[in-house]
Amino acid sequence: LFISTGFVSQCSAQGLTIVRNIGEMPQDNFGRPGLSHITVAGSLMHGLKEVEMWLQTFAPGTHTPIHRHSCEEVFVVLKGSGTLYLAPNSHSKSPGKPQEFSVFSNSTFHIPVNDVHQLWNTNEEEDLQVLVVISRPPVKIFIYDEWLMPHTAAKLKFPYYWDENLHQTTVKDEL
Amino acid sequence: LFISTGFVSQCSAQGLTIVRNIGEMPQDNFGRPGLSHITVAGSLMHGLKEVEMWLQTFAPGTHTPIHRHSCEEVFVVLKGSGTLYLAPNSHSKSPGKPQEFSVFSNSTFHIPVNDVHQLWNTNEEEDLQVLVVISRPPVKIFIYDEWLMPHTAAKLKFPYYWDENLHQTTVKDEL
Ligand SMILES: [Zn+2]
Ligand SMILES: [Zn+2]
Repeated sequence: LFISTGFVSQCSAQGLTIVRNIGEMPQDNFGRPGLSHITVAGSLMHGLKEVEMWLQTFAPGTHTPIHRHSCEEVFVVLKGSGTLYLAPNSHSKSPGKPQEFSVFSNSTFHIPVNDVHQLWNTNEEEDLQVLVVISRPPVKIFIYDEWLMPHTAAKLKFPYYWDENLHQTTVKDEL
Repeated sequence: LFISTGFVSQCSAQGLTIVRNIGEMPQDNFGRPGLSHITVAGSLMHGLKEVEMWLQTFAPGTHTPIHRHSCEEVFVVLKGSGTLYLAPNSHSKSPGKPQEFSVFSNSTFHIPVNDVHQLWNTNEEEDLQVLVVISRPPVKIFIYDEWLMPHTAAKLKFPYYWDENLHQTTVKDEL
């Protein structure tokens, strides 16, 4: 059974509530100073199977890792501004120098499947707040140390930081 | 080819832009007074295959049809408040009397697959603005005239209103 008693107690029965107040949902930085992550609607936390939604806030100067994933990802910028670095899919050995795009409040962008990308809060004054949607949760992320790292050297991080505790609980419950 | 010249000209090349200003994207009421619909990230308009995002605004007293779909759907309320009517999946012949849930600014909720539902702006003072995410686009919606209508009598509306023009263009282009 997916939702067992152990799972429900750990997740404070969040998954069983129909309407949730985002302002009261658990947020964490998962060891990354300047990040706030909330799983607004999640696979492991709320039982979604096809989409997942996050609310993330990046303090000035903070950023996502350089990464890729084979799911689709859509962003909406709620507050602040920043820079999207995007290395379109190619037959090169590494992502190479990315293209730069300015992102701003009330803008939207999506990341083509498997394109290597990184989002930075390059605004020194303001937090960057984004709503993020991914398909095929939970997310499987390949992380690059730098843009010239070969694709084959990128490291899979799974379960991802915000799924770690829930994943362990779920797997344990399934045994 | 999915994106042909005809498609691109009709859609003003929106699909080819990486970062889009939501405030400048086309909005329409599709014949429903009091509605504003924007396809923020779409299957037919932007080439997404697994998720689609809409920004919808409902004037006081307006609402979605009573409907169901076999995709997942996640809402975030950006402004205003309203009421979600939800008839959980059952073995009855018709949805029957729905449960009522208050929804409010900064709340989130998702609709279980195939549950019949309707969202109302029941706030007489303010618009209700929601960001909506669905899986498996373009959406296939079964519409009910009322809650006691048999499931078997619900009418499939496909392509849905905001997909109609794009769908025709796409199909024509594929011939
Ligand atoms: Zn990403
Ligand atoms: Zn719906």
